[in-house]
Amino acid sequence: MFGEMLDNVRIRKPLIHCITNHVTANDCANILLACGASPIMGDDMNEAEEITALCSGLSISLGTLNRSIIPSMLSSGKKANELLKPIVFDPVGVGASKLRADTARQIMNGVKLSVIRGNISEIKFLASGFWGISGVDADISDTVTNSNLDTSVDFIKNFSEKTGAVIAVTGEIDIVADSEKAFVIYNGHPMMSRVTGTGCQLSALTAALAGANPDNILQAAAASVCAMGLCGEKAFERLTLLDGNASYRSYIIDAVYNLSAKELERGAKYEIR
Amino acid sequence: MFGEMLDNVRIRKPLIHCITNHVTANDCANILLACGASPIMGDDMNEAEEITALCSGLSISLGTLNRSIIPSMLSSGKKANELLKPIVFDPVGVGASKLRADTARQIMNGVKLSVIRGNISEIKFLASGFWGISGVDADISDTVTNSNLDTSVDFIKNFSEKTGAVIAVTGEIDIVADSEKAFVIYNGHPMMSRVTGTGCQLSALTAALAGANPDNILQAAAASVCAMGLCGEKAFERLTLLDGNASYRSYIIDAVYNLSAKELERGAKYEIR
Amino acid sequence: MFGEMLDNVRIRKPLIHCITNHVTANDCANILLACGASPIMGDDMNEAEEITALCSGLSISLGTLNRSIIPSMLSSGKKANELLKPIVFDPVGVGASKLRADTARQIMNGVKLSVIRGNISEIKFLASGFWGISGVDADISDTVTNSNLDTSVDFIKNFSEKTGAVIAVTGEIDIVADSEKAFVIYNGHPMMSRVTGTGCQLSALTAALAGANPDNILQAAAASVCAMGLCGEKAFERLTLLDGNASYRSYIIDAVYNLSAKELERGAKYEIR
Repeated sequence: MFGEMLDNVRIRKPLIHCITNHVTANDCANILLACGASPIMGDDMNEAEEITALCSGLSISLGTLNRSIIPSMLSSGKKANELLKPIVFDPVGVGASKLRADTARQIMNGVKLSVIRGNISEIKFLASGFWGISGVDADISDTVTNSNLDTSVDFIKNFSEKTGAVIAVTGEIDIVADSEKAFVIYNGHPMMSRVTGTGCQLSALTAALAGANPDNILQAAAASVCAMGLCGEKAFERLTLLDGNASYRSYIIDAVYNLSAKELERGAKYEIR
Repeated sequence: MFGEMLDNVRIRKPLIHCITNHVTANDCANILLACGASPIMGDDMNEAEEITALCSGLSISLGTLNRSIIPSMLSSGKKANELLKPIVFDPVGVGASKLRADTARQIMNGVKLSVIRGNISEIKFLASGFWGISGVDADISDTVTNSNLDTSVDFIKNFSEKTGAVIAVTGEIDIVADSEKAFVIYNGHPMMSRVTGTGCQLSALTAALAGANPDNILQAAAASVCAMGLCGEKAFERLTLLDGNASYRSYIIDAVYNLSAKELERGAKYEIR
Repeated sequence: MFGEMLDNVRIRKPLIHCITNHVTANDCANILLACGASPIMGDDMNEAEEITALCSGLSISLGTLNRSIIPSMLSSGKKANELLKPIVFDPVGVGASKLRADTARQIMNGVKLSVIRGNISEIKFLASGFWGISGVDADISDTVTNSNLDTSVDFIKNFSEKTGAVIAVTGEIDIVADSEKAFVIYNGHPMMSRVTGTGCQLSALTAALAGANPDNILQAAAASVCAMGLCGEKAFERLTLLDGNASYRSYIIDAVYNLSAKELERGAKYEIR
């Protein structure tokens, strides 16, 4: 099924509107092109809504947030809701500042989100207003592990029920869940955290999968988390002794470019809870 | 002749002012360094004009347009006109929003452009006000093919006559023309469309070629379109089975770095109409 | 000693706040991850100070300066001073516009800087108000060479005395000095100037070294200049005939990722004056 969903991206070539940060915008655009979708960036209030209307999906990221684009996030989000287009929200470093926390609140109150994707600290912060996130990475004490997996799954299902959004939590173990069903995903490689923007790229990829499979958001999100993790594994195998995180960055996107439906089906490592 | 023009870039090392989008700014800077030019970015109204005055050429792109930089585009454009420095204008996704369309109009009315470079949909949109562009890529029905080549050449010559600018239309077949003479160019590789910003990079490269050869804008634009396409071909040959669009992105810029005058002379595939 | 300082980055994993330009932000983030630090970008006035407070170091760059972020530079700088966290200032192209010159003056007057890193033209401009810089690269007549080395070292020690900051001047020969002691560094490769943002990356790396070694800023800055230069050398050795500046860009960051304390100790080429 995940393979078919990936093929749908190649067939339908969804145009994805990204309101994202300048650190990772280029990588987000290239991963969208890699998977078969097309990117369009545009965050000026005077065009955001119009651009959303042209697209099959919307990806909103809080990284390097700038006040001037918050109204664009809201109006694009509302336009996407109106036109029933999926929206992926990435609360990058939401605990790092009041501005990000307030903006996340505004977006979650004003827009019906299809998928919220973040690390466990970000998701916990959204869920509880709890402060204490370190930078844009998950707090170590907040890692999802085999020993806290059941609690984590319950927590995420609960948060999904409250928000109505599919929740995708990524880390060593990934959990993608709606209120009833959770995919616990074991793909990925620790070195992915040494490449800036792999989270943002995954959010863009999720918007592409959701845009091409709008009736099946939970599976689309799970497929994209598996695909990204699998590509992280394949890219890691390719590394030579001289390669580091910069070559790894390119190899991950290359792997998305070359990922076939069959490989995704075979390589996806998950269980359902 | 194209080879000599490329050598002029290496000899004269023109400093090129780019007012470009954050998605592709890094690639534009690196392709300028690759060809032997130097980049300087600067889009704040309080410095744009001053920076233009230091440079040998100006490249303006509409991608991820932000209202705040429109006055900079206009004042840099006017300064470049005053100092007789070439300007390349790239109307990225001009049909995607009223903001982009209005801005393109303002720029085309207020600034004398040396080269307008876009895909056929963007150029048609500028020419006719016709709406319906999909994202930042050419509309399929608008592709330049062998069967509509004569009409396309005439259309582009006409548009050049109206605007006074050399028009560079890129796609499967590229056309670079002024009102009297057209270069129909067959370099390039379809995979270039899977790398974000190859169009913006070409615009920056064109500004470098024009900046180093200011008395010969038509040929400079044609040379840069051939060079970029040829580098797309050479980069494609280098791809391994595991490489995808991210490695291809680097290989294209690498190819520009290594392109010799002789190779450009030999590899340029064009006819004159 | 430099090796130990690099190891401290890997052990302490300092979170570094970068207020940098959109051209090189991605590279700065990846070089921070490469050396073992973590990046966080954030330049909105409403969050800059808060983000600085979370971090172990601050890196401020003038490239593609935008008026709207100047207050953020100042308030983050003041917050870092208050919390005794090191600040690296990179006056990119300071001579290219009055806006950059004025902003540099404001920052140097309002904030106590730990390290000022630039090319010799930028540093001379800051020191003397002398105009005439070309773009973001050092003026050729201003190159530090063996024949003007003594004068250059004296000039830089003087400037350090005046500002209270460690001064890191990079070029063919690098000089890192406080008012009493100068490291004259011979690492690096000329091709590094063909990759956009190697200067910005070095500034970010310096903030990481300083953040992990806050009691030893002069040595931290010298270590980072040696490390960056050495990685430029190692990356150059790796280039194939088809590689150019884009692959070189990745290889430099890869080399930082793989650089061991031992290699840095062995490969650092400097003398003390």
